[in-house]
Amino acid sequence: MKLGVLGTGMVGNTIATKLTQLGHEVKMGSRTSGNEKAVQWAKANGPKASNGPFAEAAEFAEIIFNCTAGAASLAALKLAGAKNLKGKILVDISNPLDFSKGMPPTLTVCNTDSLGEQIQRAFPEAKVVKALNTINCNVMVTPHIIPGTHDIFMSGNDSNAKSKVREILTDWFGWKSVIDLGDISTARGTEMYLALWVRLMAVNQTPNFNIKVTK
Amino acid sequence: MKLGVLGTGMVGNTIATKLTQLGHEVKMGSRTSGNEKAVQWAKANGPKASNGPFAEAAEFAEIIFNCTAGAASLAALKLAGAKNLKGKILVDISNPLDFSKGMPPTLTVCNTDSLGEQIQRAFPEAKVVKALNTINCNVMVTPHIIPGTHDIFMSGNDSNAKSKVREILTDWFGWKSVIDLGDISTARGTEMYLALWVRLMAVNQTPNFNIKVTK
Repeated sequence: MKLGVLGTGMVGNTIATKLTQLGHEVKMGSRTSGNEKAVQWAKANGPKASNGPFAEAAEFAEIIFNCTAGAASLAALKLAGAKNLKGKILVDISNPLDFSKGMPPTLTVCNTDSLGEQIQRAFPEAKVVKALNTINCNVMVTPHIIPGTHDIFMSGNDSNAKSKVREILTDWFGWKSVIDLGDISTARGTEMYLALWVRLMAVNQTPNFNIKVTK
Repeated sequence: MKLGVLGTGMVGNTIATKLTQLGHEVKMGSRTSGNEKAVQWAKANGPKASNGPFAEAAEFAEIIFNCTAGAASLAALKLAGAKNLKGKILVDISNPLDFSKGMPPTLTVCNTDSLGEQIQRAFPEAKVVKALNTINCNVMVTPHIIPGTHDIFMSGNDSNAKSKVREILTDWFGWKSVIDLGDISTARGTEMYLALWVRLMAVNQTPNFNIKVTK
């Protein structure tokens, strides 16, 4: 499958690498075409790995993963272009973290709105599915590094898009439990959970943890 | 021990009843002295159960539980009186839920502040410990109704107060795991988790669930 990964940071690198290991053609997108981290990543990951500016990666891809920093996501997706996102699944992994007020980070949007909703409103013809934003990138693609079953969540308005994302999460990445929270407004729940996550990370002294819903 | 429970709703009733069952002298506080729910509760719970206005309950108590609705908590505690809270542990169970914008509720304060912090600032001589606000009241006092181990959290500036609250949670209420998140500002984490909790309640179709941190 042709996949686009927007973002060259730890999350983008981890997701893109996993997707190429699964045998897919992956184009890593960045703001500028010659982005060094994207070039290095493409070189290191074989013939099915390539890179280019956001618009090229989005145009290339059947499914797009937004792995940009939350504060930069709307601008990055604008560069990717509404016409290149139209009708496609956009897996939104970003969190609207604001590091400008010190640590731990606050959120740039929350409570009565979310970044997931902002993205869906800005690109109404994309099928935005918020997912994977409640764990560290290592855990995203290798959930078994945490013992036992534990949960991730997804939010989105399009049922078929969520079915496909569930398949990606379970069959591709190995997740055993994916909880569909509902429409894209439920992204407020997972994005606001980050306020607890950053504090649990400080207590746990590792980002490699998750939560399991028990009932 | 002499304990005060501020609030006559489901949370106040559940906590106060549990505390009397444990053999403590419990005064349920309400805005007005003749509050019918408080009178009924006191009648139903034996000679160690009593009721009175907020100030009387706070003055009576060695440890005070804030079980009022979050939107009313600061006003209720003002009625309880700073002099009656001075030097005492105030277990803050409230959540700043705002139902005025429809369901699911939003928060009246979050992100760069929390209700726990607002209460600590308003009553600097009280020892505020945020706890129990991440579960339904049934789960608060009977955690074993959910199978396996699962976690609750506490936040507060005073270490001795947190040690005492940990003892209440484990020895009195039966919690097996209490995670100390740090100072009172970490209440932002548990209060904002409510945005996920309300959506999980809708998915689970029951308020009787919790989370376990897995690592």
